[in-house]
Amino acid sequence: MQETIKKIAPVNIEFAEKAQKRLDNLTKPQESLGRLEEFAKKLVAITENTMPELDKKVIFTFAGDHGVADEGVSAFPKEVTRQMVFNFLRGGAGINVLARHAGAEVIVIDIGVDYDFTKAGDSPDSTASLRLARKSWDSPLTAFISKKVIMGTKNIRNGPAMTRDEAVRCVEVGINLANDYAQKGYGIFGTGDMGIGNTTPSSAIAAVLTGKPVREVTGKGTGITDESLIQKIKVIEDSIALNKPDSKNPIDILSKVGGTEIGGIAGLIIGAASNRIPVVIDGFISAAGALIAYCIEPKTKDYMFAAHNSVEIGHKAMLKKMGLRPILDLDLRLGEGTGAALAMLIIEAGLKIYKEMATFGEAGVSEKVQS
Amino acid sequence: MQETIKKIAPVNIEFAEKAQKRLDNLTKPQESLGRLEEFAKKLVAITENTMPELDKKVIFTFAGDHGVADEGVSAFPKEVTRQMVFNFLRGGAGINVLARHAGAEVIVIDIGVDYDFTKAGDSPDSTASLRLARKSWDSPLTAFISKKVIMGTKNIRNGPAMTRDEAVRCVEVGINLANDYAQKGYGIFGTGDMGIGNTTPSSAIAAVLTGKPVREVTGKGTGITDESLIQKIKVIEDSIALNKPDSKNPIDILSKVGGTEIGGIAGLIIGAASNRIPVVIDGFISAAGALIAYCIEPKTKDYMFAAHNSVEIGHKAMLKKMGLRPILDLDLRLGEGTGAALAMLIIEAGLKIYKEMATFGEAGVSEKVQS
Repeated sequence: MQETIKKIAPVNIEFAEKAQKRLDNLTKPQESLGRLEEFAKKLVAITENTMPELDKKVIFTFAGDHGVADEGVSAFPKEVTRQMVFNFLRGGAGINVLARHAGAEVIVIDIGVDYDFTKAGDSPDSTASLRLARKSWDSPLTAFISKKVIMGTKNIRNGPAMTRDEAVRCVEVGINLANDYAQKGYGIFGTGDMGIGNTTPSSAIAAVLTGKPVREVTGKGTGITDESLIQKIKVIEDSIALNKPDSKNPIDILSKVGGTEIGGIAGLIIGAASNRIPVVIDGFISAAGALIAYCIEPKTKDYMFAAHNSVEIGHKAMLKKMGLRPILDLDLRLGEGTGAALAMLIIEAGLKIYKEMATFGEAGVSEKVQS
Repeated sequence: MQETIKKIAPVNIEFAEKAQKRLDNLTKPQESLGRLEEFAKKLVAITENTMPELDKKVIFTFAGDHGVADEGVSAFPKEVTRQMVFNFLRGGAGINVLARHAGAEVIVIDIGVDYDFTKAGDSPDSTASLRLARKSWDSPLTAFISKKVIMGTKNIRNGPAMTRDEAVRCVEVGINLANDYAQKGYGIFGTGDMGIGNTTPSSAIAAVLTGKPVREVTGKGTGITDESLIQKIKVIEDSIALNKPDSKNPIDILSKVGGTEIGGIAGLIIGAASNRIPVVIDGFISAAGALIAYCIEPKTKDYMFAAHNSVEIGHKAMLKKMGLRPILDLDLRLGEGTGAALAMLIIEAGLKIYKEMATFGEAGVSEKVQS
């Protein structure tokens, strides 16, 4: 991990300037394509390539369970985490639909689900599901990777989510995936998550790292009642008071009040930055992972694109802390990487503008007469 | 025109309810895909089809010149309108790139350009351009249609932009295109514009129809100086004072301070609504056309999607007047239909979610336990 972190360099300003020069010479008023131009410039600066390729796109959906789900912090039962993994592998979930739309592959990573997928075939209630799922494992668009660190975190209201060593291993899972997929020639990564209960650790991380009161960064997740929200806030406050995560130590926070998928996302981002690969941060849970990565190494921020502005109230505070402006604002709160898939389409639009538009000279169009 | 307007029916609430039922049964927390769900529901209600098809998409980019360009209201010379038409036909403009990205065709309509395209081949300076352009006319992705009503509007500071009859003909050009492309099986339309000087008539329309002072709805267009902005505001104020457009009569406004492309856009929207086809409204100029259509028949609004929130300051006021919330907010101010192309990708994402996601039953995923 330390080695990878040391490899992260600032993005290349000279390349950003080259990109700006080309953008200003395209047949449109200067800056009239607004953020699309910003995205193109950022991609050129990240990749140190004046003609970057984003053809191979991939979304990493990290799945993990949360002991704190026992505290009634979610509207859905815990088994939904594994059920949704099967749904991903059959191509029926939101992320499958939107990744197909964006032309991105989906890699589902079991980093901490409280279920043994290798034995799934033997279990009578899941044979059919697994058979179906296996069919889709062969599809180029969805793949399953087992990188299980633990069988879910422990209930953070009673003690730390995991050990420090386990937290480091989660981050390393993400780093290794980033290295693998960089080597395979992927041009852009997206982050995603699946884990019943995971807005709870994400809000805990947001509170510790932004310094805001828990109630200001805690929302209704999948849709709990007002009453359950009060309970959820209390659970998070208790967990922070009990575990005393060190706000200056992101790995300590991850191990005490975090989650495996959040660690995997943090690692993926660190790995992306060290490979000079742009990474699209999905929503609230992904932002918690991004904030961990940012606090480990602030330069990671220059490699991030914030996909969207989530309905979850703690999201804005985390993006603000990192100085990231979201690309979309569509009232999403699903996670899985759905916002990242959509945002990829917009980022790619920016790159196509930069690469495919004609210049004033090429098109024989007169330039601006006033300044 | 009157016949078409009479055909416009309210969208079908029963179909919206059917769509909502399906959306609520998909493997995600209810409403967690926010506006994507709103878009799907709206498409189903518009088309009265529980499984609408958006495969055939088309953006109509109406081009026209403006006599008021003589007043120095634009940063670009007037000949850029025709030069950009050639650029569209060669596929090198922003709208070509983004329409290709969205899988939409582009139809460029000469509705009022101050240039005779039929004679372009004879003109020594444009032979090469036209030859290139003609090659792309055959491409399925861009086509040119000549529906010229006038050789540009007159300078509105000296008198009306066009006659009432000409304004009606512009609207009819749009209606006829909508009818043609509805018959050809296109599932969604986008609006676009090209016309040096056309933020000036658009601001005039915005001022008359929203009742706001000219300075509150007038921006820098393609990028004029602060000094030129003051001049532009004066020109618009003078034009409104001189021509006295009747704020209760949209055709009167269109003829006195409007533009041919704005009339074409208004007609396209009216025609889309009468054919129950969703129409994506691009930016500031398109919103002026949309507002004309809305004031002719308010039910047209239910068929509109507002693509984005333009940098042009008058845009918000027009969207507010129609009660439309923009889909994207990317600091765009190019026009041509670029925002509409991008927004189509997001609208289509909503439809795919609705059509392709698995239900709880299909996926064997447990439903919410709390309410």
